[in-house]
Amino acid sequence: MRIIIDGMGGDKGYKEVVKGSVDAVKELGVEILIVGKEDIIEEELKKYDYPQGAIEIMNANDVITNDDEPALAVRRKKDSSMVVGLKTLAEDKGDGFISAGSTGALLAGGLFIVKRIPGIERAALATVYPTTKGISLLIDAGANVDSKPEYLKQFAIMGSIYCEKILGYKNPKVALANIGTEEGKGNALVKEAYALLKESNINFIGNVEARDIPEGVCDVIVCDGFVGNIILKLTEGMAISIFSLLKKELTASLKSKFGALILKPQFGALKSKMDYREYGGAPLLGLKKPVIKAHGSSDALAIKNAIRQVKNFVENGVINLIENDINN
Amino acid sequence: MRIIIDGMGGDKGYKEVVKGSVDAVKELGVEILIVGKEDIIEEELKKYDYPQGAIEIMNANDVITNDDEPALAVRRKKDSSMVVGLKTLAEDKGDGFISAGSTGALLAGGLFIVKRIPGIERAALATVYPTTKGISLLIDAGANVDSKPEYLKQFAIMGSIYCEKILGYKNPKVALANIGTEEGKGNALVKEAYALLKESNINFIGNVEARDIPEGVCDVIVCDGFVGNIILKLTEGMAISIFSLLKKELTASLKSKFGALILKPQFGALKSKMDYREYGGAPLLGLKKPVIKAHGSSDALAIKNAIRQVKNFVENGVINLIENDINN
Repeated sequence: MRIIIDGMGGDKGYKEVVKGSVDAVKELGVEILIVGKEDIIEEELKKYDYPQGAIEIMNANDVITNDDEPALAVRRKKDSSMVVGLKTLAEDKGDGFISAGSTGALLAGGLFIVKRIPGIERAALATVYPTTKGISLLIDAGANVDSKPEYLKQFAIMGSIYCEKILGYKNPKVALANIGTEEGKGNALVKEAYALLKESNINFIGNVEARDIPEGVCDVIVCDGFVGNIILKLTEGMAISIFSLLKKELTASLKSKFGALILKPQFGALKSKMDYREYGGAPLLGLKKPVIKAHGSSDALAIKNAIRQVKNFVENGVINLIENDINN
Repeated sequence: MRIIIDGMGGDKGYKEVVKGSVDAVKELGVEILIVGKEDIIEEELKKYDYPQGAIEIMNANDVITNDDEPALAVRRKKDSSMVVGLKTLAEDKGDGFISAGSTGALLAGGLFIVKRIPGIERAALATVYPTTKGISLLIDAGANVDSKPEYLKQFAIMGSIYCEKILGYKNPKVALANIGTEEGKGNALVKEAYALLKESNINFIGNVEARDIPEGVCDVIVCDGFVGNIILKLTEGMAISIFSLLKKELTASLKSKFGALILKPQFGALKSKMDYREYGGAPLLGLKKPVIKAHGSSDALAIKNAIRQVKNFVENGVINLIENDINN
């Protein structure tokens, strides 16, 4: 198996990509193709020992940044690491692609270059969502801000397959993010999506209220990309805010500082539970090949985990399963 | 000033309403009309001392519950405390109405019985949203799940007036809840609303990302009712989940139990900051008269605070200000 990786996309730069790739070829037995500035990547690779020939480099002189307008950048920056990587994937010279670069550009590039599975109306970004119980999968996390009921049905099917095959949940419980649990609640979009999901073959358990999402009452949370992005970002914001309030309260007096010191390991454990970077990348589901958006500030460990994710994605035949289920 | 209150709506029953009303007439110098089962309310009132004639009772034999279908209940339960109260308000026999009962029924009843201010397209529920800085106002918190750009503009204007006059923010900063801060981000609804808000006279500061909402970067958060309800409920859910995780971590070992004991007052302070009940009721803005939804589990203190809120609402002429601004 050969996995293509954008060497230049992340905030932490190519050095973390190189280290993560080296760790992956040793540990996972995959081959890696790093796309980016050949000279500096080659220089960095020389620092490591790894199985001969397991890592190749493909040169690309340009980089798409978060400041670029996504669709425009994909069309114009033809020699960027992301576009070259996606083209290489589309030409069947690799089994999957990972980038820690611009989410918007990866979405646009995935659609234009890798293209959708026949029958899929929209590709969606699926993200792991940490809960008090473990993890859920949130789909769509922001790819489609204006959705139709049929899209949500397809998101649910794709999310269910991914959740079962990659996250390992048996017959995952799929729910629609809504403002009440009863059937008939919500806006026109979710009401119609509810009806479609009720008739589908997945394990649809109905609506989930936003209040219950952090408790992990369902395995797959289905929503349109606008709502999904709000859910994801608000969750991050709440975690950050509560911890900063907590810190303020806990350092307010000598006595509370002492208490905080005793509890430091507990806070650390809690914080890591809420940390998105612990859970690897977000797959763009609905494309003809596996494409993974790694966290912008991915370090070597996150890169290695994303590579493992692509490996599982391929080995479990997720694309074929989606294609079969959508067209049935 | 005479404020009408639903005696039967809340989870905690008429006794808390009676106590809150007694406290209010003594402290705020208002008159109260409690609507509900006359015999039991009268019996309860006898337990208190208060200025002669300051509290009256109006009999209503029925109660709308959370299990009733809202619009149907308002039409059919004509002798319910909520419907009788709203009718009394509409007949100008009071200056405002408070209920801790079904939100949906209060919305429906407010629209059918009290009616909208001329020029207002939709009434919206405005809720105080606690942040790390203090409080923001969230509008719409769930009244309109399918909104048009023009509604959002009106929500912003009403929210700005209420925030300035009742919450006391000078020239409040109004922002659109969105998935990015830049103009041009978001779904069709918020993009069009953005253009309308840019041309309005309020202090529109652009988009706010969900991640930044808990930090209190704006004073008024504008959104459609579906998104607003998701934001509100997810915030509650996150607070509950983080505290329950914290509790689990902190009671995991003897050492951490000791640390938790030392920090008990700090956790209490933090918890109360996140507690919605500390902030009174949610006004239904856009109606011809002040209508306040008090928290379902309102105790006497919450009821008294809601009465104070109606008093401020009336004294500051919020309805007139909305009417003038909307039609200019």
